[in-house]
Amino acid sequence: MDHAILLISCPDQKGITASVANFVYVNGGNIIHADQHIDEQSDTFFMRIEWELAGFAFPRNRIGAHFAPLARKFRMDWSLHFTKEVPRLAIFASKYLHCLQDLLWRQKAGQLPAQIVAVVSNHADAKKLAENFRIPFYRFPITKKNKLAQERKQLALLKKKGVECIVLARYGQILTEKFIRQYRHRIINIHHSFLPAFAGKSPYAQAYGKGVKIIGATSHYVIEALDEGPIIEQDTVRISHRDSLQDLVRKGEDLEKMVLSRALRWHLERKILVYDNKTVVFS
Amino acid sequence: MDHAILLISCPDQKGITASVANFVYVNGGNIIHADQHIDEQSDTFFMRIEWELAGFAFPRNRIGAHFAPLARKFRMDWSLHFTKEVPRLAIFASKYLHCLQDLLWRQKAGQLPAQIVAVVSNHADAKKLAENFRIPFYRFPITKKNKLAQERKQLALLKKKGVECIVLARYGQILTEKFIRQYRHRIINIHHSFLPAFAGKSPYAQAYGKGVKIIGATSHYVIEALDEGPIIEQDTVRISHRDSLQDLVRKGEDLEKMVLSRALRWHLERKILVYDNKTVVFS
Amino acid sequence: MDHAILLISCPDQKGITASVANFVYVNGGNIIHADQHIDEQSDTFFMRIEWELAGFAFPRNRIGAHFAPLARKFRMDWSLHFTKEVPRLAIFASKYLHCLQDLLWRQKAGQLPAQIVAVVSNHADAKKLAENFRIPFYRFPITKKNKLAQERKQLALLKKKGVECIVLARYGQILTEKFIRQYRHRIINIHHSFLPAFAGKSPYAQAYGKGVKIIGATSHYVIEALDEGPIIEQDTVRISHRDSLQDLVRKGEDLEKMVLSRALRWHLERKILVYDNKTVVFS
Amino acid sequence: MDHAILLISCPDQKGITASVANFVYVNGGNIIHADQHIDEQSDTFFMRIEWELAGFAFPRNRIGAHFAPLARKFRMDWSLHFTKEVPRLAIFASKYLHCLQDLLWRQKAGQLPAQIVAVVSNHADAKKLAENFRIPFYRFPITKKNKLAQERKQLALLKKKGVECIVLARYGQILTEKFIRQYRHRIINIHHSFLPAFAGKSPYAQAYGKGVKIIGATSHYVIEALDEGPIIEQDTVRISHRDSLQDLVRKGEDLEKMVLSRALRWHLERKILVYDNKTVVFS
Repeated sequence: MDHAILLISCPDQKGITASVANFVYVNGGNIIHADQHIDEQSDTFFMRIEWELAGFAFPRNRIGAHFAPLARKFRMDWSLHFTKEVPRLAIFASKYLHCLQDLLWRQKAGQLPAQIVAVVSNHADAKKLAENFRIPFYRFPITKKNKLAQERKQLALLKKKGVECIVLARYGQILTEKFIRQYRHRIINIHHSFLPAFAGKSPYAQAYGKGVKIIGATSHYVIEALDEGPIIEQDTVRISHRDSLQDLVRKGEDLEKMVLSRALRWHLERKILVYDNKTVVFS
Repeated sequence: MDHAILLISCPDQKGITASVANFVYVNGGNIIHADQHIDEQSDTFFMRIEWELAGFAFPRNRIGAHFAPLARKFRMDWSLHFTKEVPRLAIFASKYLHCLQDLLWRQKAGQLPAQIVAVVSNHADAKKLAENFRIPFYRFPITKKNKLAQERKQLALLKKKGVECIVLARYGQILTEKFIRQYRHRIINIHHSFLPAFAGKSPYAQAYGKGVKIIGATSHYVIEALDEGPIIEQDTVRISHRDSLQDLVRKGEDLEKMVLSRALRWHLERKILVYDNKTVVFS
Repeated sequence: MDHAILLISCPDQKGITASVANFVYVNGGNIIHADQHIDEQSDTFFMRIEWELAGFAFPRNRIGAHFAPLARKFRMDWSLHFTKEVPRLAIFASKYLHCLQDLLWRQKAGQLPAQIVAVVSNHADAKKLAENFRIPFYRFPITKKNKLAQERKQLALLKKKGVECIVLARYGQILTEKFIRQYRHRIINIHHSFLPAFAGKSPYAQAYGKGVKIIGATSHYVIEALDEGPIIEQDTVRISHRDSLQDLVRKGEDLEKMVLSRALRWHLERKILVYDNKTVVFS
Repeated sequence: MDHAILLISCPDQKGITASVANFVYVNGGNIIHADQHIDEQSDTFFMRIEWELAGFAFPRNRIGAHFAPLARKFRMDWSLHFTKEVPRLAIFASKYLHCLQDLLWRQKAGQLPAQIVAVVSNHADAKKLAENFRIPFYRFPITKKNKLAQERKQLALLKKKGVECIVLARYGQILTEKFIRQYRHRIINIHHSFLPAFAGKSPYAQAYGKGVKIIGATSHYVIEALDEGPIIEQDTVRISHRDSLQDLVRKGEDLEKMVLSRALRWHLERKILVYDNKTVVFS
């Protein structure tokens, strides 16, 4: 498979779809998928278009330059991706390892188009698991005092490794704004509640105390405001008075795995556009 | 069908189940359903037991007196109900009539073991619908100024009609504490969000603005604190960026109907116990 | 709202999307939605494109003629629809009226872009309900002997009324092939099981006997082979050993209403393409 | 935790609940859970009762003898279990390892009250996975010719290991009647479809070909008739025309893991009663 993918957002006007489709067509591309959406409140146009590169007029590294005039004409925010360029991923985890384990398994099973180049943790618990899957493990113990210094080292490692996307698989630390800014809309978190309900700490205990009949999990991009980033995916499961807090945790962990892996796969397949702190997911 | 139903809660100790089952057995009752639950945090015992009255030792009006000593022994909160005594219901509605229509239809179809004796509204919109189902309609226009006076009149009507349970089927007014105290844990509301998320006004607009991927509806008993009463039932439905605010409303209305009618049916079938602002639902 | 909608299927090749989008663009149309899909097994291209007619180069009745050369070039199956031309609908029902009632309510609430011009039945049960909603009711009692004659009369009525689409809302009769051929892929049925499981008679009793833990409902286009037509929509609900056959019926009826109304709405919004006895639903 | 669990089924009559609860009470047991169900069609009574053994009148190995007279009186089928006696489990797998991996992970995470004492396979693929979790791996290659002989060896191994329950985690072989009879209602299979739809081979391909909008998975006890055993648990997930056969497989594998692990947990927690080729699950 050798495809190009264009993600576009711009003010809506006549002719965008025709112009973009035409760009692909006249240059010899065969469109495999084309999705578009118009947000009527802000009059914004969104598009994801994917085409086969076999027989295309330009090599990968020159497509952008040829597309740029069209992009300027329509004042597009745009990015260009290639299925042959497999994203390099780092997974951050702490003591709850179910999501990490699930992602490692899925990647190995071919469900995640990514290279996992590092497992990063503030604890030692994930070491053996990472090694079982032959992924390098890096430990950065975090204290209030050393946090900024450790984050600098983490960022240096990520840079050296060419990491493009970070997954927080129940990572127990809150990243600083400085860190987040380096990976804007490229850090994916799983929160173990149906946000915006039960944001913050101990969401299962909050849900148990409140007596809700359904619990959820939410995957979102990380922004500076805690648990407030653009939501990518959510799912829910029914509970009852018979479920103890421990049952909520068990049921919730299954949700977390499903929701996080879906969100990550869509991100890796370049199916997500962010605007106005929300997401368009062309799933 | 001629059954008795006992709802019991009390501090947990040995012998409760045996004693209650024995009370039914030695007096000639055949147990049809028996459900129990122990809340381990508060060490509280909950039970719902239902038995056939054919051949039972006492008539309905004397069962309570015979059970009372056992209840005292175990310090029970308890209530006794009979399937032959069909609860009298009032439905309050305003301008959104989908829930009212749904409940009227279900009652007529035999899905709700209740008599609907009044439709009450602050507006005239529901009049024709109520009349189509031959239910008396009562209008009480509400202003800031006349609210207390109108509630007094409503309560007088409900008393006269022998109303035991009130359903707020998207009723647009907030009831006063005084009103609520008259019908403690007997007023059932439908809130058009997945509480505790998006409490208060315009939950669909809140959900749309936040960019959630799932919306919900919540049915709960009304207490003095707005949208904070014990949750009886919730359900959720998936949405996407393609759904407009209007689509959320449409999808949500289907949820509201399902959730409210389930909650009400469980209440009418005496399947709900309230404790600690939560519910045990023996569904 | 004054939109045109094109539904297209044709052998896949380069340039279809660009050509169709260009047709809309050069003639002054603003694309509101564009969805496409390629079935990789049969190499078939599917498209739904919707655009605003305000300012479009041709009036409605001449758009088809202008599009025809492009359609021929790509050997398209295509149809052209207009949101201003509201489809005329007939609903067939028998003795179970929940789906009929639900559709009448939704139509009145503005959720179904259709005119309901007739309720047709072999029994009298639906008469009062139809009249409550001021829809003409027509009764055609069916016996083995008179079936063909009655269907001829039904077809005459439908023709006279200009009916374009028929909904079988738990209609108890099996239509003859002759009837079905008059409304190819324009008769929508609701089957009260998760097809292909429990096809034929009494699906709830079949499901109950089998001890399944989930039941479903299926909406499909009617073809000559009973319960074998292209599936439009399905949904499921959880049951348990506590659910009696009657509970299955009650839970199932809610599913039926949801599934049928969704399927019908998608049909009316021209979101469905049929191929290979399956459907593409651009929902 | 040191509990006893009684599973009971018998013809319904007055006094069963009282007698059983009394047996526990007078002998000093504290009931933790008590669930009962009456199948009205066959007038059969089902019960699961769990009590704390601390302070109970008899040691574990003498409880049965003391209960037997009561059991005879009510003509009970019954079995007695103890939470301290952790069941010994063998998992059979072949080439698809997602379910095996999931069960091994859950067991290690404390979600499955069982000892996994053997992974058995006709292929070598699962070897490394089993060893990662330090579970002994046994390979029995199967051909048409050696099948009976290999099964004899498998049974000998299971006997030697004290295996009480077998999980077929996508095991590719059909067990013979002789094998099945040794483990009546103690072999749990996962079938990758929403049974009874798409029984037999390649259910995902069948579902894809049929164009269903939802797929499912089913866990059931294995009986002599293929895919016809009592259903324990099912779940479903939505698909669309955009999902390839490969997507169905991926989505379905997640279902399989969830459904199989739930069914197994309920079996291990002694929450399942079988009758009339159906199950009562006191979940």
